[in-house]
Amino acid sequence: MVDNSAQGGGRIAVIGGGLIGISWSALFLAHGHEVVLYEPAETVRAAIPDKIALPMAQLGELEQDLPAPGRLRLAQSLEEAVDGATWIQENAPEKVPLKRELYAAVEANAPTGTTIASSTSSLVWSELSAEMTDPSRLITAHPFNPPHLMPLVELYGSDPERVQAAAAFFRGLGRHPVFLKREAVGHIANRLSSALWREAVNMVAEGIAEVEDIDSALVYGPGLRWSVVGSHLAYHLGGGPGGIGHYLSHLGPSQERRWQDLGNPKLDEATQEKLVAGIAAESRGRGIAELEAARDAGLIAAQQALRGRRP
Amino acid sequence: MVDNSAQGGGRIAVIGGGLIGISWSALFLAHGHEVVLYEPAETVRAAIPDKIALPMAQLGELEQDLPAPGRLRLAQSLEEAVDGATWIQENAPEKVPLKRELYAAVEANAPTGTTIASSTSSLVWSELSAEMTDPSRLITAHPFNPPHLMPLVELYGSDPERVQAAAAFFRGLGRHPVFLKREAVGHIANRLSSALWREAVNMVAEGIAEVEDIDSALVYGPGLRWSVVGSHLAYHLGGGPGGIGHYLSHLGPSQERRWQDLGNPKLDEATQEKLVAGIAAESRGRGIAELEAARDAGLIAAQQALRGRRP
Repeated sequence: MVDNSAQGGGRIAVIGGGLIGISWSALFLAHGHEVVLYEPAETVRAAIPDKIALPMAQLGELEQDLPAPGRLRLAQSLEEAVDGATWIQENAPEKVPLKRELYAAVEANAPTGTTIASSTSSLVWSELSAEMTDPSRLITAHPFNPPHLMPLVELYGSDPERVQAAAAFFRGLGRHPVFLKREAVGHIANRLSSALWREAVNMVAEGIAEVEDIDSALVYGPGLRWSVVGSHLAYHLGGGPGGIGHYLSHLGPSQERRWQDLGNPKLDEATQEKLVAGIAAESRGRGIAELEAARDAGLIAAQQALRGRRP
Repeated sequence: MVDNSAQGGGRIAVIGGGLIGISWSALFLAHGHEVVLYEPAETVRAAIPDKIALPMAQLGELEQDLPAPGRLRLAQSLEEAVDGATWIQENAPEKVPLKRELYAAVEANAPTGTTIASSTSSLVWSELSAEMTDPSRLITAHPFNPPHLMPLVELYGSDPERVQAAAAFFRGLGRHPVFLKREAVGHIANRLSSALWREAVNMVAEGIAEVEDIDSALVYGPGLRWSVVGSHLAYHLGGGPGGIGHYLSHLGPSQERRWQDLGNPKLDEATQEKLVAGIAAESRGRGIAELEAARDAGLIAAQQALRGRRP
């Protein structure tokens, strides 16, 4: 198997030049890898050199000791992109037949040992790999948006050695890989996000609080705490000297009752209107780009502060 | 109504000298208020001067421009504690009859206008205030653990003017108050925490991932992002240029399907064992105190970094 763990020096094929593909490309380039990006849509492809400037600049701000950046090349075909690739990161639209077709072309044109990593957020490995000659070459490697600023990568594949090599590769990019023991729709992080948002939507629908107050409660409460310790560990520390064992035996039943009290909202027209109005109030006239820039600045500051400072 | 918004100079009665009472006391003292703490249990009371040293030191580290600290006095009776108080923060055990009895004693002995703020996490305002002469004097003011390090305070009461004055008081302590439009068990933050943990427990029960990987996925993914932007705003920014409106109309149905796929676990013996074993693995031999110290250091660093840097 190709050793992907070294810092820089790789020749990475990125398939798809949308938001995720550009963000991954910036990360790979910033860590000294050569990137050959294939994006089939002419107009999307033409915009890539402009669009990649911001994430590259943000990575320069976030990381202090980056090597000289790698070179970005835009390929005219998938075959050209994957030829000689040491890593393939696939970020095509979330359509099973389309991705299966891509993998067939990759298997026909890329070096035999090279891992194909799919950034898929909503599809699962077994579905994607079903028609491959060697399904063990595929892994799912799901980043969290925006990928160049978020350390998380969620890994799943059928070959444990390949998954471990992928983890080493991503650690070399400053990522924090986690492992699924079996595939699940939404992997781990989006299942957690979705579960939390369901109750956040429920509280809007039920008139318990305004959108902005719910967001603030999260940001200045559990969100802040979860940037440092996870949910399981937080309940362990909330259990007093007896930890999670004490918590479960004393407060387990009340937690189960609390779960029954949570809502199961519908995203019907009335609730959608409340959400849109609430976001408008919270945005206070700021557009998406301005909010994104503020988010990114916060993410960079939080990560610099938290590096090496988590339990 | 007494003006509680000025920095320092207040005379605050803290009822209950457990974890929450001590943490609140440290915050009040660090901001220059005088604190009179009433804790009925002799041995608990005797340990307070020792136990308050750590949160006081942490606040000194977190905040750069604190006034001279206030003076802490331990009261021998509830009457002594609330006599002349400009603010009353109640942190008694979560038992309705006990709290109602306390409020009756407070109404009989404290200055007429003084707000009684309950730190209750699991009880609601209507239940607690039901037997008061003037229920409008009570508000729920729920902090997030550890209260001296977490900015969130969740407010609810029947008198909007008193709730606004409470918000000003807590802002003067560097807190970020949020408002419930109607009372709810678990207020906002614990409902969100509970909803997320349900799915975190489900993934352990279903064998999707290990406890530590679920915690890491949260800490390096959504948790980190939620320390900067809330859940609603994150979906707004995930919707592309069309924002939340685009997201809801295009991905609303798939989000509803995802909600149906989330689990509804039981905290049965098998699941409890998996959680305890998973926490033991994640702790790598570190005890509660060591993990708490690491958590607190991370919280301090994250907050210093994020101050003024959120959208």
